[in-house]
Amino acid sequence: MTETPRRAPSLTTARYGNRPTMKDVAARAGVGLKTVSRVVNGEPGVTPETERRVQEAIDALGFRRNDSARVLRKGRTASIGLVLEDLADPFYGPLSRAVEEVARAHGALLINGSSAEDPDREQELALALCARRVDGLVVIPAGDDHRYLEPEIKAGVATVFVDRPAGRIDADCVLSDNFGGAREGVGHFIAHGHRRIGFIGDMPRIHTAAERLRGYRAAMEDAGIAVEDAWMSLGVTSPDRVRRAAEEMLSGPSPVTAIFAGNNRVTVTVIRVLAEHARRVALIGFDDLELADLLQPGVTVISQDAAVIGRTAAERLFQQLEGVGTAPERIVLPTRLITRGSGELPPAD
Amino acid sequence: MTETPRRAPSLTTARYGNRPTMKDVAARAGVGLKTVSRVVNGEPGVTPETERRVQEAIDALGFRRNDSARVLRKGRTASIGLVLEDLADPFYGPLSRAVEEVARAHGALLINGSSAEDPDREQELALALCARRVDGLVVIPAGDDHRYLEPEIKAGVATVFVDRPAGRIDADCVLSDNFGGAREGVGHFIAHGHRRIGFIGDMPRIHTAAERLRGYRAAMEDAGIAVEDAWMSLGVTSPDRVRRAAEEMLSGPSPVTAIFAGNNRVTVTVIRVLAEHARRVALIGFDDLELADLLQPGVTVISQDAAVIGRTAAERLFQQLEGVGTAPERIVLPTRLITRGSGELPPAD
Repeated sequence: MTETPRRAPSLTTARYGNRPTMKDVAARAGVGLKTVSRVVNGEPGVTPETERRVQEAIDALGFRRNDSARVLRKGRTASIGLVLEDLADPFYGPLSRAVEEVARAHGALLINGSSAEDPDREQELALALCARRVDGLVVIPAGDDHRYLEPEIKAGVATVFVDRPAGRIDADCVLSDNFGGAREGVGHFIAHGHRRIGFIGDMPRIHTAAERLRGYRAAMEDAGIAVEDAWMSLGVTSPDRVRRAAEEMLSGPSPVTAIFAGNNRVTVTVIRVLAEHARRVALIGFDDLELADLLQPGVTVISQDAAVIGRTAAERLFQQLEGVGTAPERIVLPTRLITRGSGELPPAD
Repeated sequence: MTETPRRAPSLTTARYGNRPTMKDVAARAGVGLKTVSRVVNGEPGVTPETERRVQEAIDALGFRRNDSARVLRKGRTASIGLVLEDLADPFYGPLSRAVEEVARAHGALLINGSSAEDPDREQELALALCARRVDGLVVIPAGDDHRYLEPEIKAGVATVFVDRPAGRIDADCVLSDNFGGAREGVGHFIAHGHRRIGFIGDMPRIHTAAERLRGYRAAMEDAGIAVEDAWMSLGVTSPDRVRRAAEEMLSGPSPVTAIFAGNNRVTVTVIRVLAEHARRVALIGFDDLELADLLQPGVTVISQDAAVIGRTAAERLFQQLEGVGTAPERIVLPTRLITRGSGELPPAD
């Protein structure tokens, strides 16, 4: 943690969210944007008196030229970096492509890398991308402490977090309504008569997994159902672990009649377990899956629009680069329940 | 094209495939590797006479220190680049992850980007990665002329092409047996009694699409079946185009009784068309699909192992970086027919 008092001008002005733009300088000095630009870039055509007024406004506001934005405008191939979590997770495919499309529309290349859910690797990759002079970063964080990015952000690297929030720094982030989506899905089971409902999710230290579990608990509480420990299983989403968790919930004297799968990796394995299972068990998965509508029964899901998430984040990033300064925001996008049959099965007993 | 005679030493020695290694120098000078290393790096401990012999061997062989390999060994975070075709195609997920795992095992970061099937963008991206000092490149080419990479290769950037061969340069490449896989699949239809077999593939300028079409034609020719133009449709793999192609083949006085889908994007759409179709039509898809085994009927596929392809390419890249010099090679990996029901349906008439 920095020891500098939080209100020192050098810190305030360095936060990109509050960073004054040329527009602010122009307004304060009572001149046009072009005039500010001339002063900032040392170009001729400004009277000494105007230059003094602009300089005063610059000093008063703590304006600093945004070199990243300049680079974007000045013709070197601009680039933005995307730090992914898992290259093989199909959720990130459309998200990456959407970020790439926005980057392309701004004439920038997209460079990706994956943390493989390892916080050290996330940091190493993000800093390696900064060292390779990306103009901005879209980060799907694996870790929960992003203070390592503060010097980069101060140096002008635009930054947006996606899918999970940043840890210990203020930064833009674009998330799905993980809590609300899971609560709606579990409520859907309850509306179809289920009470013994299982939840299989990812590791609880992952923001999305924790939020979805919270949604599950809230829906159960809404309905006055006391959740049993045996109904909840969180951990790695490997097929072996998920299969074991599902089989345990489905056996014993009081098995679950419905399973809420916490993400697409979990859903795929639970579909396989249920296909081998004699008794019909209801299923809702968080995240949509290709071909899910063609299975028998079709798989009901809580869908996130990965492309919209990616596009929203990328647009936010380019707003930062273009100096459209607003305070860091958390943008939460809604999920959508898509009913296809598996989530509407009544309890087997 | 360069005007330099092809056998000039400067060119021969600059081709990484033929590039002499320290081992070659040691063998020629009749000294140990460590001695060559001392001479090359200007370290003490070598007699003038030995140094002279090593220097002569270096000159005779045209040895050049491989700076990329040195960088890999010397501690700066090494990185390799992967130029993908489409970030949202699930085939490339496991491929990318396999490349990343090999990179990680070598202490290197993987940086990705996508050409979106645009040759100009492929070039821009590959050169941008080189400018950002990657040590090597794995390229899934969109274009068919890669001479733009020659200066980078000469400068020591290791390069391996994947999925499709390089154009107009000699380079390592790792491919699937696209021709053999398609021929086997279409032969499988014929063995189940089909004669009117459709082929829906990607744009014919794409190597894999052309090879798979060639495999289709070869299998038909093997069986003495004259192929009708109406049975073949090549073009973009958008759902609209593929749906139209499938519906045309399935209508008319003499519809096809089986469809060979040229890649996973095509297969997904054909599955949807056939699900709405009254008459049963056999289907085999090139590339496996998640959940394909759980559909009714299960989808028979010609499977490529994307992870093995990625791993093979990445290992080849690090061999280059480590100076294990061999001539550029084309490595062709076998495909595998996985029967699940849809490819074993008999002709409906």
